[in-house]
Amino acid sequence: MEAKNAIVLLSGGLDSATTLAIAKAEGYRVHALSFRYGQRHSHELTCARAIATKAGVAAHVISEVNLRQFGGSALTTEIEVPKDRPLEQMGSEIPITYVPARNTVFLSFALAWAEVLPASDIFLGVNALDYSGYPDCRPEYIQAYEAMANLATKAGVTGSARIRIHTPLIRLTKGQIIARGRELGVDYSLTSTCYDPDASGAACGRCDACLLRLKGFAELGLTDPAMYARVEARA
Amino acid sequence: MEAKNAIVLLSGGLDSATTLAIAKAEGYRVHALSFRYGQRHSHELTCARAIATKAGVAAHVISEVNLRQFGGSALTTEIEVPKDRPLEQMGSEIPITYVPARNTVFLSFALAWAEVLPASDIFLGVNALDYSGYPDCRPEYIQAYEAMANLATKAGVTGSARIRIHTPLIRLTKGQIIARGRELGVDYSLTSTCYDPDASGAACGRCDACLLRLKGFAELGLTDPAMYARVEARA
Repeated sequence: MEAKNAIVLLSGGLDSATTLAIAKAEGYRVHALSFRYGQRHSHELTCARAIATKAGVAAHVISEVNLRQFGGSALTTEIEVPKDRPLEQMGSEIPITYVPARNTVFLSFALAWAEVLPASDIFLGVNALDYSGYPDCRPEYIQAYEAMANLATKAGVTGSARIRIHTPLIRLTKGQIIARGRELGVDYSLTSTCYDPDASGAACGRCDACLLRLKGFAELGLTDPAMYARVEARA
Repeated sequence: MEAKNAIVLLSGGLDSATTLAIAKAEGYRVHALSFRYGQRHSHELTCARAIATKAGVAAHVISEVNLRQFGGSALTTEIEVPKDRPLEQMGSEIPITYVPARNTVFLSFALAWAEVLPASDIFLGVNALDYSGYPDCRPEYIQAYEAMANLATKAGVTGSARIRIHTPLIRLTKGQIIARGRELGVDYSLTSTCYDPDASGAACGRCDACLLRLKGFAELGLTDPAMYARVEARA
């Protein structure tokens, strides 16, 4: 039987690399989609390419979209990325690293590609437990997106295959995500999670994303194989 | 009292020009948003610029997105645009001029800009009566998009102003749209509706979009002020 097509949104981070491995393990023919969206650094796209190549995806598209032209986030402007925030503070408010409507924009391109391929399965590595409080990572958002997607497209009119947004990580802790990825052979040294890496791509170890990632490895008693600029921050 | 911000999606066509005039007449401070998305011709962007300038908008952004990289439509590939289709056939099936997920992509950028401005009102000139049968022009799609948008953004978490997607044309015939636009002073000679204009920007008079537009002017006993390549096609 021919494998079903799926689109996997691949940022180059730990979560999306794990999500890609899960889609492959579920038997999908993976089409990876990344974005050059005006983010501060392109190191994550280098990682996305390496992850896609190692996984042997059917195709990998890097799409150019300019979210910088609207601003409003520390990830697309010169606003400073917050560092050393207590873990318990994360998720209680929407931080300045939130990029307005980013997941909505990314999913919309995935939907366009899905309709053409065709594919009816889209994978997104959002997580609602160990996360930064972004509105577009919550299960109720994903459900609403899926409902909209099925009205937006031919599938919604012709009654052909229903579009599904898969979020296999949404209820997992960071430690559980890493454990699952290791079972599936994900090489986390290829992933970049940091919001503010240095010119060499080394992670800062102090932004929300690094702190959550480090907590995940620590939960498993493991050392994160990613490169960090400050070894002392790895706790 | 300061005017409220609104985003108006402006393609440069008859419907979006009318929608912009309605948003202005309702007192909004209009921010127009157009896209270079890989469409066959850029004449509609020239029109969008002229319409935005004449209307005196607060800002006009033309965003670059590449929907051509996914293909699947006569408007973004070399697939031929259908001509001379009977009006009664339109709307009964999804034609090859449908661009997969186009309105979903465009609304997502509008949502990103709305969140930053901030604005909670987004105007879109979709029409479900005299239309080509696109799934993303239907009222049920717009309702689902609005529900999703309110979960996607800060507004959905903090309970601040609810995002509204305004579709003032959705239940109007093409003739009613033109009549409303004329009351508001819209100069339809600045608008481009044709799917397949010639190099000078002259409309073909034979694609679905031209035929629906010509029907609208004919309903009112008016002559369309736009430039057509074939005078004999103007009925």
